[in-house]
Amino acid sequence: MAAVAVTMVRRLLRSGPRPGLCGAGGREPGAAPRRAIGHGRVAVELDSSAGVAVMKMENLPVNSLSLDFLTEFLISLEKLENDRGCRGVILTSGAPKIFSAGLDIMEMYGKSTEHYAEFWKAVQEMWLRLYQSNMVTIAAINGSSPAGGCLMAMCCDYRIMAENPKYSIGLNETQLGIVAPFWFKDTMVNTIGNRATERSLELGLLYSPPEAHKIGLVDQLVPEEKIQSTAAAVMSQWLAIPANHLRMMENGHLPYVNLCR
Amino acid sequence: MAAVAVTMVRRLLRSGPRPGLCGAGGREPGAAPRRAIGHGRVAVELDSSAGVAVMKMENLPVNSLSLDFLTEFLISLEKLENDRGCRGVILTSGAPKIFSAGLDIMEMYGKSTEHYAEFWKAVQEMWLRLYQSNMVTIAAINGSSPAGGCLMAMCCDYRIMAENPKYSIGLNETQLGIVAPFWFKDTMVNTIGNRATERSLELGLLYSPPEAHKIGLVDQLVPEEKIQSTAAAVMSQWLAIPANHLRMMENGHLPYVNLCR
Amino acid sequence: MAAVAVTMVRRLLRSGPRPGLCGAGGREPGAAPRRAIGHGRVAVELDSSAGVAVMKMENLPVNSLSLDFLTEFLISLEKLENDRGCRGVILTSGAPKIFSAGLDIMEMYGKSTEHYAEFWKAVQEMWLRLYQSNMVTIAAINGSSPAGGCLMAMCCDYRIMAENPKYSIGLNETQLGIVAPFWFKDTMVNTIGNRATERSLELGLLYSPPEAHKIGLVDQLVPEEKIQSTAAAVMSQWLAIPANHLRMMENGHLPYVNLCR
Repeated sequence: MAAVAVTMVRRLLRSGPRPGLCGAGGREPGAAPRRAIGHGRVAVELDSSAGVAVMKMENLPVNSLSLDFLTEFLISLEKLENDRGCRGVILTSGAPKIFSAGLDIMEMYGKSTEHYAEFWKAVQEMWLRLYQSNMVTIAAINGSSPAGGCLMAMCCDYRIMAENPKYSIGLNETQLGIVAPFWFKDTMVNTIGNRATERSLELGLLYSPPEAHKIGLVDQLVPEEKIQSTAAAVMSQWLAIPANHLRMMENGHLPYVNLCR
Repeated sequence: MAAVAVTMVRRLLRSGPRPGLCGAGGREPGAAPRRAIGHGRVAVELDSSAGVAVMKMENLPVNSLSLDFLTEFLISLEKLENDRGCRGVILTSGAPKIFSAGLDIMEMYGKSTEHYAEFWKAVQEMWLRLYQSNMVTIAAINGSSPAGGCLMAMCCDYRIMAENPKYSIGLNETQLGIVAPFWFKDTMVNTIGNRATERSLELGLLYSPPEAHKIGLVDQLVPEEKIQSTAAAVMSQWLAIPANHLRMMENGHLPYVNLCR
Repeated sequence: MAAVAVTMVRRLLRSGPRPGLCGAGGREPGAAPRRAIGHGRVAVELDSSAGVAVMKMENLPVNSLSLDFLTEFLISLEKLENDRGCRGVILTSGAPKIFSAGLDIMEMYGKSTEHYAEFWKAVQEMWLRLYQSNMVTIAAINGSSPAGGCLMAMCCDYRIMAENPKYSIGLNETQLGIVAPFWFKDTMVNTIGNRATERSLELGLLYSPPEAHKIGLVDQLVPEEKIQSTAAAVMSQWLAIPANHLRMMENGHLPYVNLCR
């Protein structure tokens, strides 16, 4: 896993310095328990006393998942993953009215094959890292969340959405003439089941908050002004669970495994 | 896939001519945009302007899935599949009060091993062809649909059922002392989930339209007189989706597949 | 399968006689159609005329799944399995307010590696035997049913729970700092789907009877005094199904299997 970080850092170095990237997600020595520590596309605020970080996506205007953004996101996430003081992450948006608009179309058009490979690798790493995180991950969906934005939300352990009727969420790639990758599909099947996923993908459906809640695409709806406080409250419930057992059931490293056929 | 058609045609030729079979599903040169083109057990009416065909099962009295019927059904379906002017199929029944009664029991009793093999091969091809069709498939379930009839409906992309309380739908093989094949089961699991399928198959349950709608076995209920118009309206919604993307997600022929582990 | 019974019996013999164990679940020659035939931790009452046995767990105070209890349970179950006169089993509890408290923690602490292996083997055999039984199995959940108790219930074909608000059911291992084995998880996924299982296991959720019914963890709620009569009535419905077909769909021993790719 460390090798991935190296790749990420190397990519950054090759691209030269960019404003706001350095230090994103890191903690300076002697920092106060709660302070903003990112200045780029991903603002990370770690509350050391609670062991909870808020990752706020700020790739304005619509948090498109560009290669640059994904790279910064992955570095920020890995720093938190490696920080023993951080046990939970709340993923939310600093952009108005949108959680994330999904993959940046410009990364998929008129570029080299190498670029496409690098871009899709970053998308997949975002998916793998978020979905397999050892931290508790909660999505505070404070805006619309189509396509790749919906994938990010689905990768989290729990989804809270603002009940603003102007917002929607779903894998709508089909409507745009794009086919959602099969691992987007698999993640959705794990979340809402096979048949609801089938309809969603064939028609490229975007759901209103009540519809999304009804089919289980989000777990809870709250008034928009309460989304961050609700996420913090839910996180404290999750962190009351013995930490080392969360997600462990997925790994299979259990003493009785060898007894099974 | 073409080889299958050859097999089908050869089987027909070996059996000699049968009334109503020739020309089923085909289009005569210079045909008007909308006209009936089948005269046998499957009446196919293709609306070329809309790109939508209605396949009406007419194997009276109860649309039993005999080897002859399945053979004609498969030929009709393949002709539409190969017709670039046809993008959607509405599957419905011309028999009163029944969509399809399912597999013809007479094909499974007192015949040769070769016959059983040929019959089951046709059943499986019906399943594979319908389930994997490149066209949008909508079932307009205008009558009861037990056993193999339910399988046909489940193979479609969308299921509309007449809300007539005398109708029912389900895999009721167990009630008849027959065990539903595992691929019937798999198709049902994909439609209504594992637990509902378990109960359905163990008890051989037939559901009323409201029950079927509640568990997701059908997607929509309408008054019987509106079933064809509803199917046409739903089809136009589906065909508004970029056509080449429908079902494509199932194939995995995507540029980034090789990037996945 | 017979070899397992030998192992079980041998284990009993090696341990020496224990009160109440011998004869559990067996039927004495010339026994009346309905009489109690177990005197140990599992009381088996077989109604020969109906072909239905009631297995009442009586490992007081809370029906902990100790190695001794599991061993007796497995022997009782196998005797019924081999008794052609028994086609259905109702699993219930003779302990007040609890169905089963799940695995006996004392079996997992301060024992030898060999003991752990023997214990987990018995747990897995309980799971395999109950889940794959050829008999119809109905859980009459007349008390709380956490952890391994919930697993036992989930292994049955149908679950009826007393609607007493003091009772709860679920895989709560995580709350206790234990990770549920992956086959507990798989069984729950088969019962309530992937997402509900994910939340259940991550948070170690225990559900009230109405909650359990809503997510499908139990099939039916009844007043506590009616649970046994309801179980008997449901069983008679299940036994009206041709007996040899129940569960057969799971085996795949069907004549057309070879026709599938």
